[in-house]
Amino acid sequence: MPEPHHLFLRACLNLPTERTPVWIMRQAGRYLPEYMSIRQQAGDFLNLCKNPELATQVTLQPIDRFGLDAAILFSDILVVPEAMGMGLSFGSGEGPLLEPPIRNRSDLERLHPFDPEQELDYVMETIRTIRKRLDDRVPLIGFSGSPWTLATYMVEGGSSKNFSRIKGMMYDQPELLNGLLNRLVEAVTRYLNAQIRHGVQAVQIFDTWGGVLGHREFLEFSLANMQKIVAGLDKTGPDGLPVPVILFAKGCGAHLEAMAASGCHVVGLDWTTDIGEARQRVQGRVALQGNLDPAVLYASPERIRQEAARVLTAYGPHPGLIFNLGHGIAPDCHPEKVASLVQAVQGFQHESRHP
Amino acid sequence: MPEPHHLFLRACLNLPTERTPVWIMRQAGRYLPEYMSIRQQAGDFLNLCKNPELATQVTLQPIDRFGLDAAILFSDILVVPEAMGMGLSFGSGEGPLLEPPIRNRSDLERLHPFDPEQELDYVMETIRTIRKRLDDRVPLIGFSGSPWTLATYMVEGGSSKNFSRIKGMMYDQPELLNGLLNRLVEAVTRYLNAQIRHGVQAVQIFDTWGGVLGHREFLEFSLANMQKIVAGLDKTGPDGLPVPVILFAKGCGAHLEAMAASGCHVVGLDWTTDIGEARQRVQGRVALQGNLDPAVLYASPERIRQEAARVLTAYGPHPGLIFNLGHGIAPDCHPEKVASLVQAVQGFQHESRHP
Repeated sequence: MPEPHHLFLRACLNLPTERTPVWIMRQAGRYLPEYMSIRQQAGDFLNLCKNPELATQVTLQPIDRFGLDAAILFSDILVVPEAMGMGLSFGSGEGPLLEPPIRNRSDLERLHPFDPEQELDYVMETIRTIRKRLDDRVPLIGFSGSPWTLATYMVEGGSSKNFSRIKGMMYDQPELLNGLLNRLVEAVTRYLNAQIRHGVQAVQIFDTWGGVLGHREFLEFSLANMQKIVAGLDKTGPDGLPVPVILFAKGCGAHLEAMAASGCHVVGLDWTTDIGEARQRVQGRVALQGNLDPAVLYASPERIRQEAARVLTAYGPHPGLIFNLGHGIAPDCHPEKVASLVQAVQGFQHESRHP
Repeated sequence: MPEPHHLFLRACLNLPTERTPVWIMRQAGRYLPEYMSIRQQAGDFLNLCKNPELATQVTLQPIDRFGLDAAILFSDILVVPEAMGMGLSFGSGEGPLLEPPIRNRSDLERLHPFDPEQELDYVMETIRTIRKRLDDRVPLIGFSGSPWTLATYMVEGGSSKNFSRIKGMMYDQPELLNGLLNRLVEAVTRYLNAQIRHGVQAVQIFDTWGGVLGHREFLEFSLANMQKIVAGLDKTGPDGLPVPVILFAKGCGAHLEAMAASGCHVVGLDWTTDIGEARQRVQGRVALQGNLDPAVLYASPERIRQEAARVLTAYGPHPGLIFNLGHGIAPDCHPEKVASLVQAVQGFQHESRHP
């Protein structure tokens, strides 16, 4: 198989690179004034996701401003449940609403299988437009929520604090929950394969809420389903290049070995795991992505440089590291801090071992 | 030193017990109708904390109802910052407010050292009243927030999502943060020693927000300070019995070995760590407390029994286990579910190895 030349893709595949690539989760977002101006133009968040021209513009903003090493499709994980027939809205401040929630077998039967090229054609058009405008400057990452994470929103009807509904279902009606998860495995696999056909060059599966599960429940209800998706993905793109798969599960450092054995190419880490120890634990089976505490961006530029260097030093010499935050960037972050961080990572040199 | 006869205290000290004791974090709380009725009588939460008679009544309610193996003082961790001079209030729904927040050296200087027997005399009176009413049925646990956790509220001015203020301080003004943490080490040590003098028979330090830190930051800013407190505690009570110290840090499974080496007697685990593996990792150096997912209480009584048995079986034969939830019980839990859980734990028999 031919080798990609982009730093980001090479690092995902554990191929030699001249330096560590960097991108930032939620890099196109509210902390950027130019994003806020486009979002105002769009009216609301969901309109922005559904407008390929505007979604393309916000996708490219952080690339133009900071020179990041990868772009990520601007969209939302909840467009999948919407395409399956649920009503999606973003209330002001309280997070997303999905209605009516899935609570029994007939709610489940009401969901329909979907053709991502039909119901989510606006995502496919956004991908094609971004690729055109990027003109191969940096690769484009596609994404989806994990089945478990999507199911939490679908069963709770939105965000949750205690996950009482879905956990009650997990304990008392596991066959109902597995019915939902199986449908999501199929939907997400089709969705990501469509993204790949239309031009994304890597995919990330976000398991935002895997960390609310115990170890055994994580393996059974979250990881096993992500693994089925990984197995079903077209891992070669239309350009003949390999399409790496990144799994990111927040608060799941304890399950790292299992995630590394899932068939994915990269595991994303939050900041609570030491990335040097994580590298030991995965023994080269996957590349790692992460894992600076997003709160470091509240510190001074000098301190940001030091903390970035700590992550890079803890990991040790490349390849196999994609630098990122350990979670999405906060809306109240100052863009200049991001500039400092990107410079620090892109300019970092490991100390020579031969003084 | 004489040995205690209470199951709970024996388990904390890794002494032989005939069965595993059980108590529940936030066992005196909003899920109990009898609690809601007393709280209404008190007017608000803080009034309830400050009324020794009513605080005693709610402390005893879950003991009377469920036959739990330990009582825990009804109070709040934020009475300590209030006693140091901050304004404390509980807004409706948004969580606590501490004003004005600590942001610089002069804010810090405004805090005063306090005499817990003076400013927190109502806590001491509550402890004496509870002990009298308990009449040695079960032991009484005292508690405090950890310095790091108290500092998050004091610096943020209340609850927080991103911990932007305290983490900014940690990175850019570590000497200021350490100034605050040092004062809290002193305050918490005095406070817990006063609780012990007035009759609590074990103490738990809650590090609710240790889990938002990376490993190195947890060791430096949270654990090191808890360790100083442990070293400064009177580990023998007025009755001549040992007073065990429990450290509970949510989301800190990765730091278990370090916590077990802190000098405490018991480490509390949340549900994301397998308690059997945790027992291997601590090698008998401490007892363990935990770690059922509180969401199991949304399941059926039969399933609750199964999940309780799973924790007990994973840990293996006693001693050294105090059964608990991995976090506080949720306000929307049904009391009958708690009854099922307590029965399941107290009636559990390990399968004989010789059939």
